[in-house]
Amino acid sequence: MNDTSSPQMTIHDWFNGPYPARVRIAVAEKNLQAQVQFVSVNLWEGEHKEPSFLAKNYSGTLPVLELADGTLIAECTAITEYLDNLAGPPTLTGATPLEKGTIHMMSRRAELELLDAISFYFHHATPGLGPEVELYQNVDWGLRQRDRALRAMAYFDELLKTRAYVAGAAFSMADITVVGAFIFAAIVELAVPMHLAALHAWHARMLERPSIQAWYTMVEATQAATRR
Amino acid sequence: MNDTSSPQMTIHDWFNGPYPARVRIAVAEKNLQAQVQFVSVNLWEGEHKEPSFLAKNYSGTLPVLELADGTLIAECTAITEYLDNLAGPPTLTGATPLEKGTIHMMSRRAELELLDAISFYFHHATPGLGPEVELYQNVDWGLRQRDRALRAMAYFDELLKTRAYVAGAAFSMADITVVGAFIFAAIVELAVPMHLAALHAWHARMLERPSIQAWYTMVEATQAATRR
Repeated sequence: MNDTSSPQMTIHDWFNGPYPARVRIAVAEKNLQAQVQFVSVNLWEGEHKEPSFLAKNYSGTLPVLELADGTLIAECTAITEYLDNLAGPPTLTGATPLEKGTIHMMSRRAELELLDAISFYFHHATPGLGPEVELYQNVDWGLRQRDRALRAMAYFDELLKTRAYVAGAAFSMADITVVGAFIFAAIVELAVPMHLAALHAWHARMLERPSIQAWYTMVEATQAATRR
Repeated sequence: MNDTSSPQMTIHDWFNGPYPARVRIAVAEKNLQAQVQFVSVNLWEGEHKEPSFLAKNYSGTLPVLELADGTLIAECTAITEYLDNLAGPPTLTGATPLEKGTIHMMSRRAELELLDAISFYFHHATPGLGPEVELYQNVDWGLRQRDRALRAMAYFDELLKTRAYVAGAAFSMADITVVGAFIFAAIVELAVPMHLAALHAWHARMLERPSIQAWYTMVEATQAATRR
């Protein structure tokens, strides 16, 4: 990376999307904000399902990272791997084989059991992005996934009784994934049960991180500007 | 790693499972066979859903890698990250930031659109592992995922018209994920359309790799021994 202040990377996303949040938080953790510009893809208008966007990401999901030469990287874990290996500390995806394995395991588990489960609930068992975007809904599937997410909240609570961070002793990509789940849970009004004290205590510590504070500040400012 | 021939790692899996295949192939690519022992978890008897196994992997999926000190690593991508960073070439998860990002993207896309989709089809819209294991089935979801997998086959065919491997110019974890999808497709008798010539040509090259040949040889020998 050179010193110029002009952005060398473009992220296609939507300002308050839970998956986009994972990458925005990673960008902030890696202190790469000055090298990134954001381009809006309006989820609520289904722009992520239009041919022009599907050409960038076959799966039709946000976010997508576009490099200066046009190279495209989709999928939060993949983008985080790229950014993490591009820039200096903190390390989000691990330094040793054991750290890498553990962080990838816990981040994937947080997706599978929690974040993706909440996303399925949103898209299948609630109005989601509205009838023009949600062309296929499977309510029973969505409700099963909501229940799966609730069970996972209890699992992560148990885990966080004996460790400071989701993947062990240090903050990592896996914490960001669970933060993304909290963001999505708030959007779908799926309450994290208050008796899960260790999970809530961990989340309170996460909210103290500048990267995550900056995300909430940005979202609130954008929403206030939109309402104007 | 030291030189002793006694195994230092245990992999809990089932011999011909498509997800276990991904890790077995990775072990062979990394030439770590002598350091790994395998313990059977009988999928057809639902052993992966029993409390003793769920204590090893909350998600109840195979495979799980157990290190000599008892540390557990689940999720194929995570196990592959661990093994890849433990041992020498070939590199399965990339060396540069761009390679890492691209390989993780393509492997995740191959899961999401192809391998996981075929798995959903198997578990939800076919008898799957049988009524005692498949406690919840959602046929409509399973059939949608089958169609998603068929679309993805055409996508990967198109991709492989202009590149030698799934993530670009070199063999990687992403190829192994698509090999896993071929293995699962054969189990569920979901034919890869013959007109997808580039995809079939790529697969024929994959079948020439010693790691993948060894997997098929092991499966055939095990099945022959079982039938005896």
